[in-house]
Formats: sequence, C-alpha cells, structure tokens
Amino acid sequence: MIKIAIDGMGGDFAPQVTVAGAVEAANSFDDIEVIIVGREDAIKRELYKHKVVGGKISIKHASDMIEMSDSPVQSIKKKKDSSLSVAIDLIKQKEAQAVVTAGNTGAAVAASTLQLGLLPGIKRPGIAIMLPTPHGISIAIDVGANINPTSEHLLQYAIMANIYARYLLKKKQPSIGLLNIGEEESKGTELQKETYKLLRDSNLNFIGNIEGRDFFTGKVDCIVCDGFVGNVTLKLTESLLEMMISLISKEISKNWLAKIGAILCKSAFDSIRKDTNYEEAGGAPLLGVNGIVIISHGISSARAISNAIRVARDAVVERINDHIIDGITEYSKMHLESATNSSTQQHPTPRVIS
Amino acid sequence: MIKIAIDGMGGDFAPQVTVAGAVEAANSFDDIEVIIVGREDAIKRELYKHKVVGGKISIKHASDMIEMSDSPVQSIKKKKDSSLSVAIDLIKQKEAQAVVTAGNTGAAVAASTLQLGLLPGIKRPGIAIMLPTPHGISIAIDVGANINPTSEHLLQYAIMANIYARYLLKKKQPSIGLLNIGEEESKGTELQKETYKLLRDSNLNFIGNIEGRDFFTGKVDCIVCDGFVGNVTLKLTESLLEMMISLISKEISKNWLAKIGAILCKSAFDSIRKDTNYEEAGGAPLLGVNGIVIISHGISSARAISNAIRVARDAVVERINDHIIDGITEYSKMHLESATNSSTQQHPTPRVIS
Repeated sequence: MIKIAIDGMGGDFAPQVTVAGAVEAANSFDDIEVIIVGREDAIKRELYKHKVVGGKISIKHASDMIEMSDSPVQSIKKKKDSSLSVAIDLIKQKEAQAVVTAGNTGAAVAASTLQLGLLPGIKRPGIAIMLPTPHGISIAIDVGANINPTSEHLLQYAIMANIYARYLLKKKQPSIGLLNIGEEESKGTELQKETYKLLRDSNLNFIGNIEGRDFFTGKVDCIVCDGFVGNVTLKLTESLLEMMISLISKEISKNWLAKIGAILCKSAFDSIRKDTNYEEAGGAPLLGVNGIVIISHGISSARAISNAIRVARDAVVERINDHIIDGITEYSKMHLESATNSSTQQHPTPRVIS
Repeated sequence: MIKIAIDGMGGDFAPQVTVAGAVEAANSFDDIEVIIVGREDAIKRELYKHKVVGGKISIKHASDMIEMSDSPVQSIKKKKDSSLSVAIDLIKQKEAQAVVTAGNTGAAVAASTLQLGLLPGIKRPGIAIMLPTPHGISIAIDVGANINPTSEHLLQYAIMANIYARYLLKKKQPSIGLLNIGEEESKGTELQKETYKLLRDSNLNFIGNIEGRDFFTGKVDCIVCDGFVGNVTLKLTESLLEMMISLISKEISKNWLAKIGAILCKSAFDSIRKDTNYEEAGGAPLLGVNGIVIISHGISSARAISNAIRVARDAVVERINDHIIDGITEYSKMHLESATNSSTQQHPTPRVIS
C-alpha cells in the first residue's frame, strides 16, 4: 500500500477541495492510502460529506497552517506544527512516501529542502511543470525554485527532467531543449552559453536551444530554463489563456447570433479548455529533494488534487528518485572519466628518452 | 514634410509588402514622404502595381540586403550597401527623420547603434513593444536588445517608456511596473532588487513589481524587464495566441454544428484577432538611439508596415528623442542633488565652536 500525505489546509479552497480530492483519489486507486494533514475538526467536517471506500483515508492532526501570503522560509521556521511541515515530516518518519500540497509554493520548496534535504549529488531542487502540447505532455524545469541558477544546476535539471519524462511520461529518449533567445549556440547570456556546452557534452538527447515560441509546440520533451524566466512564463501563460477565454466570452455576449454560435461551438471550447488545462496534468513535482513532493496550483479543484495524488503515486511506483540518483551518478562518472582522459592528454607523462 | 525611410528589402515578404505598406502610408498622411531603400529594379516593379498620390514616394538604391539569418554585427560591418544600413544612414545625412524596418531585428539594433550612436546619457538602447490590454496599449521594454542589463539600464528604459507613453500614447502620468516573480520589494535577483530601489527613488510613477500574469491586464502602462525575459515572453505570447486560434479552428472543424457556430461567432473572433494583434499597434520603437527607428515584425503585412510608418511619423512630430534627453537630464540632476545632499548629511562641515 502506497501512503500519500496531503497538506489538507494548503490552497485557496482548502480544506473543501483537498478533502474532496483526497477522497476521489483514494476511491480511484486500489493501492493507495491517503493521509490528510491538518486541523482534525475541519477535516472531519469535510470528510462527512463524502463516501470513502474502505479505511483508505486517515487524518493526521496539525494545529497550524501556512498562509499563501506568508514568507516561505520564516513561516517554516516559526510554524513548526503547520499542515505542510507535518505532512512533509511524515515522509521523513517513513509514515508516508509522498506529499501533495496546493499551498504556498515557496514554503513547500523551503520545507521540503530543509526537512528532507536533497538527493545525493543534487545542488538545488527545481519545480517541473507539465505542459500540454499537440505532441503530448512536455516538461519545463525550473519555474521558480531557483532564480539564480548556475549552469551545473541547469544541467542537473535536465538530467532530472529526462528521468521524469522517461519513467513518468513514458517517453523513450526524451529530447532536451535549452530555453534561449535564439537557436544558435552563441546566443544568450554566459549562463545559457555554459549550459549549452554542458548539455551538448552530456549523454542526454540534447537538441539545442529553443525559443519562447517553442514552449507549447511540443518541439522538445523537456525545456530547461532558469527559475526567473520559468516563473514569468508560467504566470503569463495562465493569464493569457484566461484573457483569451474572457475576451471570447465578452465578444460573444455582444450579439445574439454569436451567442447561438457559441452554444454550437461549446464542445470545441470545452475540449480546448481540457487540452490546455494544467490541472489535468496533475501538479508540479519538486525534483531533487529527498522525497516525492508534488506542488499543485493554489486554485486547484478536487479533480486537480486527485490528479496530483495520482502523479505522486506513479512517482513512488516508478521509484523516480532512485533513477535520479542513478542519472546524477552516471553523469558524474562520465564527466570524471572525460576530465581524467583530457587531463592525461594535456599533461602526458614525460617519456624517459632511452 | 516628414521624410521616413523604409528598409524596402527587410522582412519575410519584402519588397511586396514593404512597398505596399509605404504606398498605403504615403497616401494616408498629408505630411509625410516615404523613401523606399533597396534594389531599384525590384522596388520599381512593385511600385508599378500601386497608385501613388503626388510625388510622395521616392526610391533610394541599395545593392545589398541583410538576410534574416545573417549575424547582426558582422552583416552590418560587411554589407555596407545593405538596404538597412543605407536607410539608417539617411537619418545621419539628414535626408530622413525616421527609419522603419521589418528585417533582421539584431541587425537593426546593431546598425542603429553603430551608425547613429546613442542619445546623450543613454547607456543602452532598448526595444519597446506595444501590448494590447483591456485598458489600452501598454509598453514593455526591453524585449531583446540587451540581455545583460544593469539596474541603471533598466531605470533608463523606464524613463524612456514613460516618455513614450506620455507623448505617443497620450497617457498623463504613466504607471511603471518592474517585471518580477512576486510583488514584494524583496523578490527577484540582485538586478530586480537594485532596480526596484532606483525606480522607487526616481520621479517616475512607479507602482512596484508586477508578475507574468499582469502582462496583458493593463495593470501598468509601462513594463520594465530585462531583454532575455522580454524576448522569451514576446515569442511565447505570439505562439500561444497562434496555438489557441489553431486549436479552436481544429476543434471546430470536427463537427458541422460547431462549424455553423463558428460562422455565427466570426465577428467575435475577428474582433479578438484585431484586439490582440501587435501589428495594429504598429511596430516596436528602438528607444535610446540617436534617431527614430521603428522595428516591425518579419511577417508584417502591408497594413502593419503602414502602421509602423504612422508611428515613426508620430514619434518625429512629438519630438520623442528631445523629451527622452530631457528626461534623462532631469533624472541625472535629481540624482546628483540627492547624492550631494546625502553626502552633505553624512559628512557635515565641522562647525567652529565659538
């Protein structure tokens, strides 16, 4: 049985949607148990509204909660009994194998890093989001955990995204692209130029730089970017899609012919909304920490929470973190060997002239 | 008479659309003359297709052209007789007051900077784009001229965008926002933190940090960002809008009811396309160079070119560069005074005890 803890108090509509999502997931998968972490009375009140099959849901009490507006690191240090910290601690105590939270993203990154630590060899964690594209789901990493990355951080993100795409998205040889302002190797700042070299010389399926316009085309399976650009991009995308939908609704409401038209097009719009919906993809894994942590959007619906729990389950089943450790170890070995080889070539042992 | 030169060979559909756009603009405005720069035979061939009112169009021959794929700085140095360089040189020779180009953006930045130089006090030029929002046009600067800006560069972009919004977009007290990953002053990298302070202490109407989600809401009149993020954002936006339109078309074509619906909604879609169309806004001014240079999208239509020529005309009429010089001078004075005052306070003249 896979035990997944959910931060019951995290998110704009907690604990209603967190409990509803937990129930949906517990009822959908035979092999999981969900532990809802948070104020016992509030969670019990929500649980009474639902029908749970078997004893697949339990509650772990936590008296405090982290607000969306709280400062990430400070709130983790001050609110020791927050639902987020208690949930993450369940991983450490081996009482859960994964955590899902729709709460404060910064706090989730801070709590995971401070309480669980990083996987061996990993320098920084990164948030990976799933992007719907015409060629299936692509991953973009990092979208905000690390706004001052080095080229080594970005390389490690590529390694982790590659593993995630292989084991969770079932892509055979995931292609990797570096987000840049042009396709040529010479483009970008020093960060992109250095990262380009590291990726080119790695054993990853690196296809080169990609541009902003390639974000949703599915040109690559994994997009590597710094957390600042990734964060701006993510938030822009969300607002653009909302803007388009609201513009369409506004325009359509202006005349009755268009209103009839809109009713006839409804299935098409619904389908687009589904295709472009992050929530269907199910949360953003925080990769690199020593445990499975899935971060959901603050406005997540019960369906999105349930999907995030499914992703957490899949990550446990596929032993994603073991594969990440293997990937990092393999790269380090390869890198060390090539460094040794090149240093041998550069400084050959002096031959004794006979 | 305002003389505007257009790079006749620049852009994906040159010289057809550049000539058509030049003719449209020349016929629309009484006070402009358009000089089309490029291969005389090719331009003449296109001109024969149109009817030009009066003698408002002339041709300036240039034997060479810069390709979209050419390296910006190298092509400017090698191709001395390119349509772009010759057009920009017309400003220097005082034969034209502004240049419009839909060619290679990097080359346009390089040629303008190298051939015209920068306005007094300006450290780096920046490309400003016009964003359609529910509250009118907003400006974002920089979207790719400078991917390694300092906080001083960003401050100067804010000053220039402020002037542009006042004189060209007729906004009384334009609001300025710094693109960041959160609203708090403490957010972002050192670059954003330093820029925040400079903007806060300036005489601009700085309202603080804005996030990716605020890009198209019209929350601020001027968005200041580094060229890397701005470039990725711009390209992403274009592709997202295209993706949405293509998704809608694809979904709608799947069933006949939706097809009828789409016909009924057509006016609504057309209106959205117009509202979200960069080309209607008319090109991106390259601010900070010693001359008026408007950069249009490579895929510009004749209508977009004509709009860009209109913007160039307006920039000349409004003496935008004089106002930028004033703005920079005013800031420097204020800055110098406050530095003098604070140094006076820190090191007061020792008083002689009587």
